[in-house]
Amino acid sequence: MSNLSPLVKNTEYAVRGEIAILAEALQEQLENGTKLPFNEITNINIGDPQLLKQKPISFFRQVSSLIENPDLLLDKNLEQVKILYPRDVIDRARKLLKSVGGNIGSYSHSMGIPYIRKQVAKFIEERDGYPSDPERIFLTAGASPAVQMILQCMVNKPDVGVMIPIPQYPLYTASLALFNSRAVPYYLNEQKGWSMDTTDLKEAIDRARKQGTDVRALVVINPGNPTGQCLSDSNMREIIDFCHRERLVLCADEVYQTNSYSKNLPFHSFKKILRSMGPTYDNFELFSFHSISKGVIGECGRRGGYVECVGIDPEIIRQMYTLSSMCVANVQGQIMVELMVNPPSPGEPSYDLYMEETKEIHQSLVRRSVKLYEAFNDLEGVTCSKAEGAMYLFPRIRLPAKALKAAQKAGKQPDVYYCLDMLKATGICVVPGSGFGQKDGTWHFRATFLAPEHTFDEFINLLKSFHKKFMEEHQD
Amino acid sequence: MSNLSPLVKNTEYAVRGEIAILAEALQEQLENGTKLPFNEITNINIGDPQLLKQKPISFFRQVSSLIENPDLLLDKNLEQVKILYPRDVIDRARKLLKSVGGNIGSYSHSMGIPYIRKQVAKFIEERDGYPSDPERIFLTAGASPAVQMILQCMVNKPDVGVMIPIPQYPLYTASLALFNSRAVPYYLNEQKGWSMDTTDLKEAIDRARKQGTDVRALVVINPGNPTGQCLSDSNMREIIDFCHRERLVLCADEVYQTNSYSKNLPFHSFKKILRSMGPTYDNFELFSFHSISKGVIGECGRRGGYVECVGIDPEIIRQMYTLSSMCVANVQGQIMVELMVNPPSPGEPSYDLYMEETKEIHQSLVRRSVKLYEAFNDLEGVTCSKAEGAMYLFPRIRLPAKALKAAQKAGKQPDVYYCLDMLKATGICVVPGSGFGQKDGTWHFRATFLAPEHTFDEFINLLKSFHKKFMEEHQD
Repeated sequence: MSNLSPLVKNTEYAVRGEIAILAEALQEQLENGTKLPFNEITNINIGDPQLLKQKPISFFRQVSSLIENPDLLLDKNLEQVKILYPRDVIDRARKLLKSVGGNIGSYSHSMGIPYIRKQVAKFIEERDGYPSDPERIFLTAGASPAVQMILQCMVNKPDVGVMIPIPQYPLYTASLALFNSRAVPYYLNEQKGWSMDTTDLKEAIDRARKQGTDVRALVVINPGNPTGQCLSDSNMREIIDFCHRERLVLCADEVYQTNSYSKNLPFHSFKKILRSMGPTYDNFELFSFHSISKGVIGECGRRGGYVECVGIDPEIIRQMYTLSSMCVANVQGQIMVELMVNPPSPGEPSYDLYMEETKEIHQSLVRRSVKLYEAFNDLEGVTCSKAEGAMYLFPRIRLPAKALKAAQKAGKQPDVYYCLDMLKATGICVVPGSGFGQKDGTWHFRATFLAPEHTFDEFINLLKSFHKKFMEEHQD
Repeated sequence: MSNLSPLVKNTEYAVRGEIAILAEALQEQLENGTKLPFNEITNINIGDPQLLKQKPISFFRQVSSLIENPDLLLDKNLEQVKILYPRDVIDRARKLLKSVGGNIGSYSHSMGIPYIRKQVAKFIEERDGYPSDPERIFLTAGASPAVQMILQCMVNKPDVGVMIPIPQYPLYTASLALFNSRAVPYYLNEQKGWSMDTTDLKEAIDRARKQGTDVRALVVINPGNPTGQCLSDSNMREIIDFCHRERLVLCADEVYQTNSYSKNLPFHSFKKILRSMGPTYDNFELFSFHSISKGVIGECGRRGGYVECVGIDPEIIRQMYTLSSMCVANVQGQIMVELMVNPPSPGEPSYDLYMEETKEIHQSLVRRSVKLYEAFNDLEGVTCSKAEGAMYLFPRIRLPAKALKAAQKAGKQPDVYYCLDMLKATGICVVPGSGFGQKDGTWHFRATFLAPEHTFDEFINLLKSFHKKFMEEHQD
């Protein structure tokens, strides 16, 4: 026990913390027939679409299934296989198998399968209208290991820091704690829809530097997690300009890039905005992360993603190569990255079904985000910004003094106290704002809008009753 | 560039280093029609069976293929599917899908899918004859991330150290460098078939402690990588006793446990030996690692494995839970762990084929290990121990003074110089001993015996000609 590294001890990970563990225990009780005030756990704590019964995209799974068992592509099996699988699925499986020498069973190239990195570069070029280099792309087991790899290359001692948004996805603070470095927080502006204010950024970095912190990078999550905002182009230009002036590497967490719901604020990548700003910024350093876990795909279990390194020193690329050699990404995740960046095209047999499935998921996400947003704003003392993107709402709850006292007595943060009560009363599992950080004296929680659409009325009703009762019981 | 963490700079990873990168370039040249002195690259540098055309186990891939696309299990598809897949494959796929709520698309439990952890515990109990607790097993994306997670929990500053064998698998030194801690080397005894000598262990730990190192753990790789030895039961008891006396955690890398070729030295797990030593050792701390990448399975690309924590403090388990929450293992790898520990049973439709496939691979590995061992020992100045286990031979090469000088002139270690020359002349890619560590003044290389059996005569002939020519050219 005394052997335990204090760096690990300082690492916290609220998304899978106390409340998630209690939810598991309650789930087990339900399965064992225990009578509880609810019939099921509503796991809106975590951005995991398929956990909440979102169906996988047929084309993707058909291809991955064929690739698993290449014997199916032998002549003797083709008759049955052609009944089960469309022609373009068979073609795609053959092409992808060819790109890995006929079998997915061996380690890939440390940076990821070269053919798939080329496909990713092509996707980025088409998305942004600017060149992308496959030799500057690493395929990873999701965005999380990519973020960890980058941070590990940049930070290593207590006086080195990285600017992170508050509220933030806890991966960032947890990784910085683990790598023995400092999180330099900056606050998103809740009043202005969780946008970024470069005056605040400047204040935060000056304060950190005055305290002796060597600030090396700025993390931006866009669309935002847990806050759901989308940054405007002009805000993004300000941020790039800020990093340029302050000589910071920009880490752009863009895993929610297809979860963009606002016509006024369509997603643009930082790479695109950067390149549009001209040659002054040619040496700007940017990492951009993407993932198969989000979007309308939601293949969280598979672990796949990539990081594009823009303007990054070749020596750092070489060191990233060493790190990725130590833990090569799984091939199944890489295959899914290819399918994500290169879905069926018009005219191919799988195109219509692919479009139908993805459109339906996207539209349903919009409907569900609005429904939950309205429900939150209906609650006494709760305000919530609309989700312009991502999968989350981050409502603010104003708790009566009696609730704060009760929380203190229970040895809990007030938002944790509220969320635990909610879980026990309704089966609804959310993550308290303190897991992401929030301005002192404000309390929030994060909820996904990923629950199946037909369950919304029921769990919203449970939530409303719980909240009313909680507020009554804790009335000042 | 100045931002690059010195910890990452110090990290080296020879297995995927300079020579592997040159081999890739030569491979590309061959594919583009460039004439070289050989027709193909023989990648015996890395323990990656399927890269060298070993066929995946049919049952495993059939199950994983069905699980990818659960639509195949719908009534409308069952007619075709029953033609393509045996009954027990369909049953197993259904069972595994049920254990993850019907779909593999979502994040698993942070420690791994509970059902699969139970299956692993059952496998360990049957293997060793002693109880195993699924709540002390973490499913991981291969053994490497498990090793890294454990080391990360135990070490964190320059004066903390972990004992590692020399020669060793470079994951250990690379991880310790990355976590800013010390590798405390102990030497395996080449004269005694790379066995472990507890007198040497004691000397090594005393020396390290005298230098102010807080030594916390001992790593043993058994069967050995890169050395191929299997430890005897009495040697294992001595090692356990040594750790007990010195209050060290034992990290047993047992990923080659089914790659055991010697009747005199069958594989026994450290857990089994430990438990057989009675209650004096009840509080002994042991981590044991296993993987789907090795054995006769060789599913390296998928990334799956586990670590069993024996006698480990619950607080450390809790911290391992936090770390694994930050990077949950991919579900496809976990599924394959289940198939590994629970293969088809006698009487099931897939049993005979499974037995035939695994037996053939195992017997072929034995034949190939002997053939390569004899070939190495036939070379002038080369001696090589027999492989009792694992997938590797680690021959010692005695290089003439002229070769040492030529290497120095080229700015290379002599073994690197020799291996680069070998690659350029023969297309055979091996890893120089300096990537694993070796006694000063001795030179080795690591070669797998995984090349397809029918290619052995040809590449061994190339090797013999190269070696003869090299020795002639560098004659003193």
